[in-house]
Amino acid sequence: MSSVESVENKFFLGIDGGGSKCKAVVANQQGEVLGSGIGGPANPIQGYQKTIDSILNATEKALADAGLSDVKYHNLIAGVGLAGVNLPQPFQLMSQWQHPFSAFYLTTDLEIANIGAHDGSDGAVIIVGTGSCGFSSIAGRKISFGGHGFPMGDVGSGAWIGLEAVKHTLLVLDGFLPQSQLAQTICQQFSVDSGLALSEKLAGRSSHQFARIASLVFACADEEDKVAKLIVAQAIEYISQMLNLILQNSPQKISMIGGLAKFVLPRLSEGQQQLFSIPANQPEIGALTFAQRSWQIHHKQSA
Amino acid sequence: MSSVESVENKFFLGIDGGGSKCKAVVANQQGEVLGSGIGGPANPIQGYQKTIDSILNATEKALADAGLSDVKYHNLIAGVGLAGVNLPQPFQLMSQWQHPFSAFYLTTDLEIANIGAHDGSDGAVIIVGTGSCGFSSIAGRKISFGGHGFPMGDVGSGAWIGLEAVKHTLLVLDGFLPQSQLAQTICQQFSVDSGLALSEKLAGRSSHQFARIASLVFACADEEDKVAKLIVAQAIEYISQMLNLILQNSPQKISMIGGLAKFVLPRLSEGQQQLFSIPANQPEIGALTFAQRSWQIHHKQSA
Repeated sequence: MSSVESVENKFFLGIDGGGSKCKAVVANQQGEVLGSGIGGPANPIQGYQKTIDSILNATEKALADAGLSDVKYHNLIAGVGLAGVNLPQPFQLMSQWQHPFSAFYLTTDLEIANIGAHDGSDGAVIIVGTGSCGFSSIAGRKISFGGHGFPMGDVGSGAWIGLEAVKHTLLVLDGFLPQSQLAQTICQQFSVDSGLALSEKLAGRSSHQFARIASLVFACADEEDKVAKLIVAQAIEYISQMLNLILQNSPQKISMIGGLAKFVLPRLSEGQQQLFSIPANQPEIGALTFAQRSWQIHHKQSA
Repeated sequence: MSSVESVENKFFLGIDGGGSKCKAVVANQQGEVLGSGIGGPANPIQGYQKTIDSILNATEKALADAGLSDVKYHNLIAGVGLAGVNLPQPFQLMSQWQHPFSAFYLTTDLEIANIGAHDGSDGAVIIVGTGSCGFSSIAGRKISFGGHGFPMGDVGSGAWIGLEAVKHTLLVLDGFLPQSQLAQTICQQFSVDSGLALSEKLAGRSSHQFARIASLVFACADEEDKVAKLIVAQAIEYISQMLNLILQNSPQKISMIGGLAKFVLPRLSEGQQQLFSIPANQPEIGALTFAQRSWQIHHKQSA
């Protein structure tokens, strides 16, 4: 039987799942994107069931967007890149999911981002969004940098920047530090005037909630608030160091992606900025390519 | 009816619940301690059901220790001081518990620590254990300092010190910082040799797990490791600042309690050390006093 026969009636699904949201795209056998959808957070470290719900929800929306709501999940060949599955245990957990798809190819959000950014070619990416991490794939050798999660890793990420801002604000509210524009902005954002009220609003919250504060910190830095400038400078220093570590592997191309790329990239030195190329495609398209490739490899093996 | 009649067949229960464990003591109507027991973590922010389980488990052990296993819970007048209930929502949640006791008087771990330390008199306490916070009660005016929880508050606490040490170790393992004795010690402790393995072991862990690292940081600081010394210096600076803020309210007495007091107190300046008095009693005894007082007030009101 030929590849074309086997894939008959089937569609490809690309999933990009992170701490803040989950994107899905559906494509036909020729790789043409027919529809897309967005679901909730999909980082298994923050919740296994939530991750599954978000994947299925995003898939449903993508099918509806494509006018394919009648298509059964068992006709979908899924390529799924998730945050958190760079750690062995979450990877194993998600791999054991009794998924409803025809096939379920799982990898990290890093790998699909890299595949998407360089159209499937070798290269490297720096992702700065809710979390932060680097990844390079060169001649089959895959290396990742950082990405150790909230609150101990992911320096320079949205969650890290948000947490640093909240830590500062609590010290101001308690009288340990003098007032700052940043602290005032955070208090205004959360409608609080005491450390107790602020910690109440953020107790037990995930990286996603802290990451939502990051754009306020960049805004305060632009308005010359000293504390915000220091937090941003530390973030940029870390990303700059990560870039230098990645460059030791001599990737042909490197791209920066993620929700904070637009804040971070322009703040690197001019020399560093010039090293970056615009990503060819978004991570969810990389996930689609990953699904197609994985299916082809699997098909060849089983043919 | 007299107070003595009402309290007949009843015992007093004192509970001190924190992020790491829950201590219970049982006393007779004369306030003589008959037995004690220790249960698991009891911070409602980290888990409501777990908190309840830990309180009941510690109570059961205290009753057994007192040879009072036959005593029914509805014969216990409970004074309960918990971490986390300085925030309004956890306080409300715990207040609504359909507890099995004759009476359930709830307050913060701070207040019972203060009552215990000063034998019921006015004064102030600094608590440095899994978390960090200050509290003063002077002529009915109660003020707390810090205590905003992991990971955004509680500077200088065990969890904060542990988190800082892990953050440093991850940067070393990723090649962002040079090797240090502290990083080596942390890696040895967790039997890991990569950032991925370390973050796997600590992903999603509570403040309690991070606090267990703190004593290693103090040990490395004693052996002149520069990074450990810096983390410890920042912790001491924060506690020292908290002391200065508390002193603005002119408490008659101040004590330092909690698992890290033995590390922190000797590192303050000599002048600051002399301000501290040895706590008269442990927090769980303060909880017992709180139960007795609350019951008497309630009894007078309803008499």
